[in-house]
Amino acid sequence: MKREILLNLKNSPLEYISGEHLSTVLGVSRTAIWKVINELKKEGYVIESSSKKGYRLSSTSDVLNSFEISQELKTKTLGRNIVYLDSVDSTNNYAKKAALEGCEEGTLVVADNQTCGRGRLGREWNSPDKKGVWMSLVLRPEISFDEVQIITLAASVAVVQALYEVAQIEAGIKWPNDIIINGKKVCGILVEMNMEIDRINFLVLGIGLNVNQEKEDFSQELLDRAISLKMYMDQNANNQKILKRNEIIATILLKFEEIYDKVKCRAFEDIITEWKRYSVTLGKEVNITHKSKQYRGVAQDITKDGKLIVKCVNGSVIEVFSGEVSVRGLLGYS
Amino acid sequence: MKREILLNLKNSPLEYISGEHLSTVLGVSRTAIWKVINELKKEGYVIESSSKKGYRLSSTSDVLNSFEISQELKTKTLGRNIVYLDSVDSTNNYAKKAALEGCEEGTLVVADNQTCGRGRLGREWNSPDKKGVWMSLVLRPEISFDEVQIITLAASVAVVQALYEVAQIEAGIKWPNDIIINGKKVCGILVEMNMEIDRINFLVLGIGLNVNQEKEDFSQELLDRAISLKMYMDQNANNQKILKRNEIIATILLKFEEIYDKVKCRAFEDIITEWKRYSVTLGKEVNITHKSKQYRGVAQDITKDGKLIVKCVNGSVIEVFSGEVSVRGLLGYS
Repeated sequence: MKREILLNLKNSPLEYISGEHLSTVLGVSRTAIWKVINELKKEGYVIESSSKKGYRLSSTSDVLNSFEISQELKTKTLGRNIVYLDSVDSTNNYAKKAALEGCEEGTLVVADNQTCGRGRLGREWNSPDKKGVWMSLVLRPEISFDEVQIITLAASVAVVQALYEVAQIEAGIKWPNDIIINGKKVCGILVEMNMEIDRINFLVLGIGLNVNQEKEDFSQELLDRAISLKMYMDQNANNQKILKRNEIIATILLKFEEIYDKVKCRAFEDIITEWKRYSVTLGKEVNITHKSKQYRGVAQDITKDGKLIVKCVNGSVIEVFSGEVSVRGLLGYS
Repeated sequence: MKREILLNLKNSPLEYISGEHLSTVLGVSRTAIWKVINELKKEGYVIESSSKKGYRLSSTSDVLNSFEISQELKTKTLGRNIVYLDSVDSTNNYAKKAALEGCEEGTLVVADNQTCGRGRLGREWNSPDKKGVWMSLVLRPEISFDEVQIITLAASVAVVQALYEVAQIEAGIKWPNDIIINGKKVCGILVEMNMEIDRINFLVLGIGLNVNQEKEDFSQELLDRAISLKMYMDQNANNQKILKRNEIIATILLKFEEIYDKVKCRAFEDIITEWKRYSVTLGKEVNITHKSKQYRGVAQDITKDGKLIVKCVNGSVIEVFSGEVSVRGLLGYS
C-alpha cells in the first residue's frame, strides 16, 4: 500500500490529494493512510500535509531506494536487480561478494552512505550520507585483462553523457578514471576484477559521484581538487535544476548500457571515438608515475584498448596502461 | 576435554589407555570419557576399544580438522588461521569471500568435500568426500599481474617436494599448473586474483590433490588422465605408507612457505631453477591452444616470470603466458 500511496502522490506533483480520496481509492481507513504517510516521511520523503487540502509530495524529495530507481530506469538489463543499502563499507566490496554468490550481470548495488569508500590503489573516497551517488555494477563481459581499461573509458563516457542529460553540465574526462568539472574532480571510477590467469570471471564497476556536497563538506585540501554537482550549479545560477540521485543513477545506467553494448560487440574504436570527444587529457602536458618511474611529456592519443600514448620530453613515445597521471590545468597541477 | 583425550591417545599410539587412567588424569567420570570417545568416533576417528584394556587410536585415522592440521603444522605464518568445512561449494570461493572480509595473509580454507570444485576456466574438478586435499590459501603478495604465474610455479614446486617428503613419491610438473605421476594428473593448482587495473588486492591459491581415490572413483574418461596417491602407491607395493591428509596439508604449507619467501624477496630465478628440476614439460613436444590459435613445437625454456618459451615447427619462437597445453606423453597425448 505504501507504493500505491507514493504513486498517487507522484502522479499529482502540483495538486494536494486529500486523505479521504486516498482512503476511498485504496479502500483503507484515513488513519491507515496517515500512518503510511508518516512512514514515508521517516524514510526521507518530504510530504507537505494540510488538514484541509491533504498531502503533496515535495519536488525536493531525494530518497534513494530500489523502488525509486526502478521507477526511473529505462534500461533493458542493467540495474534490473537492485540492492539498496542505507550504509555499507563499500558498494564495490558488497558487489564483489554478491558476484561470488553468482548474482546476475547488471546487478546494481547502491548505498546512501559508504563507511570505507575507496578509490584506486586503496585510497580513501569520501562518501558522506545522502550526498552522492555511491554505486557498483556487476559485469561479466568476455574480454581479456589487456582490454579491461575499455570498461573504465566506457563508464567515463556514460557518466559525462548522463550529467549532460540530467543537468546540462558539460564535464570532461581525465585519463584514466576521473570525471572533471571546472578542473576539479566530480566523479571517480574504480574497476575491480575477479580473475584467473586465463580469464576474467567478473568485473565490478564502481562509480562515486559527488552530488549534494556543499563547500563545508570538503576538507580544505580536497576543495582544491574536488567539486560536487550542486556546488557547480550554485556557481551557475542559471542552472536551478533540483538534483535527484535516482534520476542520475538511472540515466548513468541507460547511457552505460548503450556503450556497454559496444563493448560486448567489440566496437572498441567507437568507444574511443566517443571518449576523445570528452577528453581533457589529450594534447595536454602530463606527468606520469608508474612503478616508481616518472615520465613527462604530452598526451598524444589513446590506443584502441585504452592505453595513453605519451610523447615524452626526451622524444621517446610510450604507451601507458595505468599509473598516476597529472594533467596540467587539472586538480591543482599548474 | 575432547582435545585432551585425543592428545593422550595420540601420545600412546601402540598401547591401550584405560578409561580409568583417562578418568583419573582428566578428573572426570569414566562415563564422561566414554561419551567423548563416542563423539570422536562420530567425527571419524578410528578408536579401538576393549573393555579390559581401554582405548587406542588406530593409525588408520585420517580425520581432517583445524586441530589436526595445527598439530602437524611447522610454518611461521601460513595456515595459522584455519577454516575447516565439512562441505563447501569450492574452497577457492570461500577463501575469496574471507579475503574480501579482510582475513589475514596465509588463511587456509580446507574442506572434506567440495560440491562445485573447479579447475581452470571454470572446468569441473571432482572432489569426492574425504578422498583428497581440497585447500585454498589467501595470499597478499606485492607482485604485478605480469608476475602472477610465479605463484603457480612456486606452488607446483611445493607440492612436488611435499609428495616426496610425505611418501617418497617423485612427481613432475606440467606447465602451467598440473602435478603429474606416471603421466597422469594427481593435482591441479588454480590461482585466482582480486585486482584493480593497477594492482593485485589479493590472491587465492587453490590446490586440489587426489589422495585416497580408488579406480572406481574415477570415470573411464578420467582414468586415462587422472590418478590418486593411493592408486600409485598400491601399484608400487613397496610403498605402504598410510596417507594422512593433515600431514600432507601441513607439509605442502611448509614447503610453500619456504618458496613463497623467495617470491616475497623477488628471487624469481631461484624458483624457476627449482621448477626446472621437476619439469616434465621442457624439451618435450607441445601443442598449445591460446585464444583459438594453435601452436605446435618444442617447449624450450621458461622465462623468469613463468612464460613458456616454445620453438614452433615453423621456426618461430613464442612466449606463452597461458593457454591449453598438451605435452606429448602426458595425460593421454601420444
